[in-house]
Amino acid sequence: VTALPRGFLAHARNLGIKDATHDFVVVASAAPCATSAVFTRSRFAGPSVLLSRAHAAAGPARAVVVISKNANVATGDEGARNAREVAAGVAARLGCAAREVLLASTGVIGRQYPMDRVRTGLAGLPARPAAPGDGWGDDADAVARAIMTTDTVPKVTQAEVEGSAARVVGVAKGVGMIEPDMATMIAVLLTDAAVGAGELDAAFRRVVDETFNCVSVDTDTSTSDTAVCLASREAGPVDPRAFARALHEVARSLTLQIARDGEGAEKLIEVEVDGARDAAQAKRVAKAIVNSPLVKTAVHGADPNWGRVAMAVGKSGDDDVREERVVIRFGTQEVYPRRVDETGLAALSAYMRGDTVRIHVSLGVADAATGGRATVWGCDLTAGYVRINADYTT
Amino acid sequence: VTALPRGFLAHARNLGIKDATHDFVVVASAAPCATSAVFTRSRFAGPSVLLSRAHAAAGPARAVVVISKNANVATGDEGARNAREVAAGVAARLGCAAREVLLASTGVIGRQYPMDRVRTGLAGLPARPAAPGDGWGDDADAVARAIMTTDTVPKVTQAEVEGSAARVVGVAKGVGMIEPDMATMIAVLLTDAAVGAGELDAAFRRVVDETFNCVSVDTDTSTSDTAVCLASREAGPVDPRAFARALHEVARSLTLQIARDGEGAEKLIEVEVDGARDAAQAKRVAKAIVNSPLVKTAVHGADPNWGRVAMAVGKSGDDDVREERVVIRFGTQEVYPRRVDETGLAALSAYMRGDTVRIHVSLGVADAATGGRATVWGCDLTAGYVRINADYTT
Repeated sequence: VTALPRGFLAHARNLGIKDATHDFVVVASAAPCATSAVFTRSRFAGPSVLLSRAHAAAGPARAVVVISKNANVATGDEGARNAREVAAGVAARLGCAAREVLLASTGVIGRQYPMDRVRTGLAGLPARPAAPGDGWGDDADAVARAIMTTDTVPKVTQAEVEGSAARVVGVAKGVGMIEPDMATMIAVLLTDAAVGAGELDAAFRRVVDETFNCVSVDTDTSTSDTAVCLASREAGPVDPRAFARALHEVARSLTLQIARDGEGAEKLIEVEVDGARDAAQAKRVAKAIVNSPLVKTAVHGADPNWGRVAMAVGKSGDDDVREERVVIRFGTQEVYPRRVDETGLAALSAYMRGDTVRIHVSLGVADAATGGRATVWGCDLTAGYVRINADYTT
Repeated sequence: VTALPRGFLAHARNLGIKDATHDFVVVASAAPCATSAVFTRSRFAGPSVLLSRAHAAAGPARAVVVISKNANVATGDEGARNAREVAAGVAARLGCAAREVLLASTGVIGRQYPMDRVRTGLAGLPARPAAPGDGWGDDADAVARAIMTTDTVPKVTQAEVEGSAARVVGVAKGVGMIEPDMATMIAVLLTDAAVGAGELDAAFRRVVDETFNCVSVDTDTSTSDTAVCLASREAGPVDPRAFARALHEVARSLTLQIARDGEGAEKLIEVEVDGARDAAQAKRVAKAIVNSPLVKTAVHGADPNWGRVAMAVGKSGDDDVREERVVIRFGTQEVYPRRVDETGLAALSAYMRGDTVRIHVSLGVADAATGGRATVWGCDLTAGYVRINADYTT
């Protein structure tokens, strides 16, 4: 069991959004928290994102509410009113201001919340006690389970902040519609480290860019992407670099858990590109590889068809990428430009049968050691993905 | 049977590139042709593309050679030498200069041609007679069949140039690795219209941009994309606008044939976007929709999950796209912002069970009638796509 950091308690329940599983969770701090939050850049961002973006910009937050199995997206004025009612209802039970409540919601697009059931649930929300009890607990795993939609496993992890008593605990959800632009579907990171709001924000945005913004299951950017980080500050001061490392470790672990649980996924794909003009070029080429349906299906079938990686590098179209300077490796095996014979193809296929496939491309635009680099994560494309998504709402 | 235009003859045969089917075809004109050709912008473009790009730029072409089932891509200096040897060998048999021969090649990446067998085949190539006979014919269907790789049907069509005796005949191949940047996998358009090289080039490039550059099966841009158009000029002068219309009709038909035969595809998807700032924005949003795996799987399952189209519009991220001005239709049925009730969802699902699904989005950035617009084509994503591509080289 992973315990929440000091200062946080959670209450999870079923509101009847879609079925009888937990679909509503409140994580609340005893006092206002240093807060950082990043959101999708989708032009169809839902009311939860719009409301939380405004609240996070207004100052410290006290609580994060997650409703799962309905995204409340493309729902017009009625959807916006419903989001405000949920935030206000939770704030009233917690005895805080509505603007101290952040809201995230994922699930089907274009349907209103069943507000009769939501109102009944909100009215029955017990007040937050000082210690676990009365429906409130400190179990992070329960939070991770409550925010799941079609995830097959809950996603939770923790890290200690070296040289202090502080910890970082993170939960996330997301298996499809995953190519985050500012954050992944939903990730909530909590810490009891005593960090200032500015420091937290800078560290969190950098970490998000290196982790959640480097995963893609299917190139489809969600309307609901939300990643928030709250610091209760109850565990005292920390070394800023140790804190940043712990934050990175938690976010990276959640990112890998998301990639490995991609819809229908059977394998994790990690693509590292170095020797690029800059980090942006490295990331763009790495994304082209990890998102290529032909690379993803080849990995699925353990088909040693490395030419598809060459194709994906080629389609970046950058003038400074020169075929004769590119080096492609699977794991530690070079497949281009070194010619791969039949024995080599058999070894490559054997490597690709593992549950993690690493593809490494040195672009040769700059020096491999000092040039731009990026690592991104994704998953294979399977008949399971098609099955899951051809029949989701019905 | 579709006959080639006047002035063209074709010879198809098996060279033993991979199996016993036709894998080599030469289409040759009696005299030099007005020529236009466009190619992939991939940085891993193969020797066929590099050679043909140089030859097409140098002046009129006399022949197009297509080798299928081996792309001759990422094959280094040896691959480049082999491409030159094929062009020179064909030129010798035709009695023309090597630079009058264009070469296109598709199939597996990273393997050398089996040159022993290729040389034997080239040595046995009969000289081109003045009329059909001696292994040379005027059957366009035979050309379409010879250039297939994993295509399930040959792609061929023709159009008459109104007010003249001239025709345009086109063949194409391509089912996967299809998101052309300058052209599709391979398309060869032939005409006997007496058009000048400049006029032909301008008309062809415009037509390619509106047709082949608007199809995507899987977002993966090929290393081998080649579209060429040769005019023998044997049928006399034509009205330029009538010629452009015939060229467009042929290219559009081939484009739709490619989309409908996408790997594993069971349905054609046509996406039209209007009311955009300009044509570029319309095309970008339309491509985001037609390429979304979640839209493609919803179409496959006839799942009336129109929210995925909203998601795909949203991920374009353009600041001027405003959720409250967007209108989404499937066929003639508006699904957003008009609310869809249960009867509407059932009607939508019934529509989506057809073999062609049309999605129409008015962006509302500009007037729908006068603003930027684009139409693009694609196909659904099926378990068949995964099966075909997880096991292609082996």
